[in-house]
Amino acid sequence: MNYIKNPREIEVKSFEIIGEIIKETRPNYKFKNDIEEKIIKRCIHTTADFDYLDILKISKGAIDKIIDSLKSNAIIYTDTNMALSGINKRKLNELGCNIKCFVADEEVAKIAKEKRITRSMAAVELAAKEKGRKIFVIGNAPTALYKILEMKEEGKLDVDAVVGVPVGFVGAAESKDELEKSDIPYILSKGRKGGSNLAAAIVNAVLYSI
Amino acid sequence: MNYIKNPREIEVKSFEIIGEIIKETRPNYKFKNDIEEKIIKRCIHTTADFDYLDILKISKGAIDKIIDSLKSNAIIYTDTNMALSGINKRKLNELGCNIKCFVADEEVAKIAKEKRITRSMAAVELAAKEKGRKIFVIGNAPTALYKILEMKEEGKLDVDAVVGVPVGFVGAAESKDELEKSDIPYILSKGRKGGSNLAAAIVNAVLYSI
Repeated sequence: MNYIKNPREIEVKSFEIIGEIIKETRPNYKFKNDIEEKIIKRCIHTTADFDYLDILKISKGAIDKIIDSLKSNAIIYTDTNMALSGINKRKLNELGCNIKCFVADEEVAKIAKEKRITRSMAAVELAAKEKGRKIFVIGNAPTALYKILEMKEEGKLDVDAVVGVPVGFVGAAESKDELEKSDIPYILSKGRKGGSNLAAAIVNAVLYSI
Repeated sequence: MNYIKNPREIEVKSFEIIGEIIKETRPNYKFKNDIEEKIIKRCIHTTADFDYLDILKISKGAIDKIIDSLKSNAIIYTDTNMALSGINKRKLNELGCNIKCFVADEEVAKIAKEKRITRSMAAVELAAKEKGRKIFVIGNAPTALYKILEMKEEGKLDVDAVVGVPVGFVGAAESKDELEKSDIPYILSKGRKGGSNLAAAIVNAVLYSI
């Protein structure tokens, strides 16, 4: 069987094809700027889903804030180990940033059980107690996103930015609508679509731009 | 903010909504059997993408083979740590099954460099050397899928089944077409769509049915 075996070549060719398909199918589509183009194209690269041309939303100044945060040794908190797995650790290490996922933490399981909340929510509570600048990356749990918004409103959480792309049928769209209304800098996907893979792709797109 | 905080309730409600949407939008759609229904609905649950009603393909006997394999202490080999992260380890442990991802292995990096192949391909070569029944779960790398097909054809690899759902624009669709033509029991997604999250969801759906 004959196929491309060079990873760099595969990636370059993939982005070329994505660009060509956008030109053909959406000739009037305009990206707002270079970094937004990179992020949205990487979302499509990860999902083969061109809906992200329309549903990915980035708040004004969010990317600058995330980059500034990453350059200041921010900690990234993910809601799933899948999202954590997909984020480029070499790039994070170069920047001196840490990444954590508390969802499988014993302390988190205990808090969740006691308070009758999801482990994703308890993980946000635990993260809130930590020092340092924080970026939350939520690809799965609307409850985590709601918890972030609640704690921020109550003045119990300092957060630089949220990548909020939970996927699903119960609360996902609604939680992202709430994030959109908040004053937290965000990157989000409108509606039901999203996911841990998407969350990781978005963070990687920003990392690769630094 | 008012939202459902019980994980079990969220999941049950999600699958209800998915069922309702299928009934409304595809009233004539028929699942072949109960387990195929569970797998496809879990794919939709993970992606919020109803395309999987049409693009998910399961070869005759594949599910029985995978279940038999999992009941015989098979090892699951994934192409990414994301797919590995997403698969339910508690269920695997109960069955006495192991799960491995060699892509970040030092030996694999060495083989890949020497042979000028992708690390995903080298990981398949390393897995082939191991004893025991094997299920490959490929959510990202078409090159891994091609390698499995090549080594099987050459009689260098024993494989019980492949969950082959690489996503992307270079080789993904083509590699899955080749898998479909092979005599390896498969679960695959036609075309460009797929992903590590999808791969994990498919394996979990089978695990939850055991």
